[in-house]
Amino acid sequence: MEFELRILGSSSATPSTNRHHTAQVLTIGNQHHLIDCGEGTQMQLMLYRIKHQRICNIYISHLHGDHYFGLAGLISTMHLQGRQTPLHLFGPPGLSEILSLQFKYSGTNLNFKLVFHELDTTVYKKIFEDKSVTVHTIPMEHRVPCCGFLFREKPKPRPLIKEKLPDFLRPPQLVRLKWGEDIRDEAGNLLVRNTDVTLAPKRSRSYAYCSDSRYKPALLPYLQHVDLLYHEATFTHDLHERAAYTFHSTARQAAELAAAAQVRQLIIGHFSVRYKDLSPLLEEAREVFPATELATEGSIFSVMERD
Amino acid sequence: MEFELRILGSSSATPSTNRHHTAQVLTIGNQHHLIDCGEGTQMQLMLYRIKHQRICNIYISHLHGDHYFGLAGLISTMHLQGRQTPLHLFGPPGLSEILSLQFKYSGTNLNFKLVFHELDTTVYKKIFEDKSVTVHTIPMEHRVPCCGFLFREKPKPRPLIKEKLPDFLRPPQLVRLKWGEDIRDEAGNLLVRNTDVTLAPKRSRSYAYCSDSRYKPALLPYLQHVDLLYHEATFTHDLHERAAYTFHSTARQAAELAAAAQVRQLIIGHFSVRYKDLSPLLEEAREVFPATELATEGSIFSVMERD
Repeated sequence: MEFELRILGSSSATPSTNRHHTAQVLTIGNQHHLIDCGEGTQMQLMLYRIKHQRICNIYISHLHGDHYFGLAGLISTMHLQGRQTPLHLFGPPGLSEILSLQFKYSGTNLNFKLVFHELDTTVYKKIFEDKSVTVHTIPMEHRVPCCGFLFREKPKPRPLIKEKLPDFLRPPQLVRLKWGEDIRDEAGNLLVRNTDVTLAPKRSRSYAYCSDSRYKPALLPYLQHVDLLYHEATFTHDLHERAAYTFHSTARQAAELAAAAQVRQLIIGHFSVRYKDLSPLLEEAREVFPATELATEGSIFSVMERD
Repeated sequence: MEFELRILGSSSATPSTNRHHTAQVLTIGNQHHLIDCGEGTQMQLMLYRIKHQRICNIYISHLHGDHYFGLAGLISTMHLQGRQTPLHLFGPPGLSEILSLQFKYSGTNLNFKLVFHELDTTVYKKIFEDKSVTVHTIPMEHRVPCCGFLFREKPKPRPLIKEKLPDFLRPPQLVRLKWGEDIRDEAGNLLVRNTDVTLAPKRSRSYAYCSDSRYKPALLPYLQHVDLLYHEATFTHDLHERAAYTFHSTARQAAELAAAAQVRQLIIGHFSVRYKDLSPLLEEAREVFPATELATEGSIFSVMERD
């Protein structure tokens, strides 16, 4: 199953000619999870041929315009193109009020159900779950209420070793074996030891999106061992005072979190417009955490299934 | 003095990969007048190297998202880049409420004064005037309150023929000659006949922007002899019923208005996404009004000063 992140925008508040405002698509299986939706996101989706019909959920981290000014336009286009599937929108208090006002004045009555889930950005909390994934909020520390999102695949079934399975097992027992149970008779005697007939399950993959935030080591418990960590890195560390003042982070700080959390890969983004060349940010992060990449427009980060 | 229109977006409600939502810049002298501001306008301004510091006024025709979803982002960028000059914003009721709500939740306190002028879209009325230009609303007929804008240079002074000017004339009398008066003595006797010592003034140039509207011949009085007429042409005429139903116009209808109003040049835009190739729209309009051009992204229409 696919578990792939596509970057649509890497710019901080002011865009530049070749950098767009924040938006990302995390594809899990057949579904797109859109994370933040800066101005121009619908154009970026078209550019990369990502079908908005496949977007199931949209997550807005906070109400600074560079993270959501593309939302009303995208939803309007979904409507005009005949979407009927419900869309789930997760965002801070105020987002629903803003959209409702915009649609009131445009006389828009959406063809599809827009289900708004208001977020408490101050807590770590499960906000979505389906058969394969859970999504939790991660509290950020920014100038306005802001959270990140942790996407984690659910535990996976243990593959059965067919040649070792006794013939007497019935389908419900096979299901129990897949989920780690031993098989016992009615008296409780062990009939089949799970580990004798199953393999270890594939690891559950995970992605943590850390939106705008001042350097916050308190995030560490949420980020432990994630496969992909996106963390903003608006500035290089020579501007760490400016970063703290504006509630942003430096590339070095992002890398320090990645190292401490022992993630597999760090992706940095939300670059200040002052950096025409992004290599100073990348080099600074890689000094602390070598497995770092830039969240440039169009980049793809796939996480393979593995044991 | 420059009088030049630059097209930033030509698409109707749904954008395509190479067509942006509606926005135009009319440059008169040293000032930019931004007309509508669809999503991505700030990126288009950058692409064409148009400095937003020189935008004095923004005019929003109506509150369909494809005409204003780029506004909050552009204003935010002006703010972040340190604008201090007041900005005048002309738009229908509701626009100010929407922006205020967005800025409330983003915690934005603008560095500069944003002066909102609420428009009555149902009347022809002067909404702006400076030393060189007047701007009037033109009532459109659309699904929500909507107006166009008529930009007209003020009458220009008559050039003096220096070699014919009698020596006794004082500066105040020269000013009166420039504005068409004869010079008389205190008893009312003619001393200098204006037309003997001045030339005809240069024509005042004009641009009429007709935003989204059903075909509306009642617009004709406002459009007579304008130099440039922009009129939406969402559809070709085979879809005239759909045009009427959605309160839009066809290319032929736009051309019929241009011909009846005897304008110098017609520019058609706001094309439905169904037209990958725009030539059917252009050909249809040119059959009725040959001096028609397409409002494609980046096109420039200059109006020269002339006698």
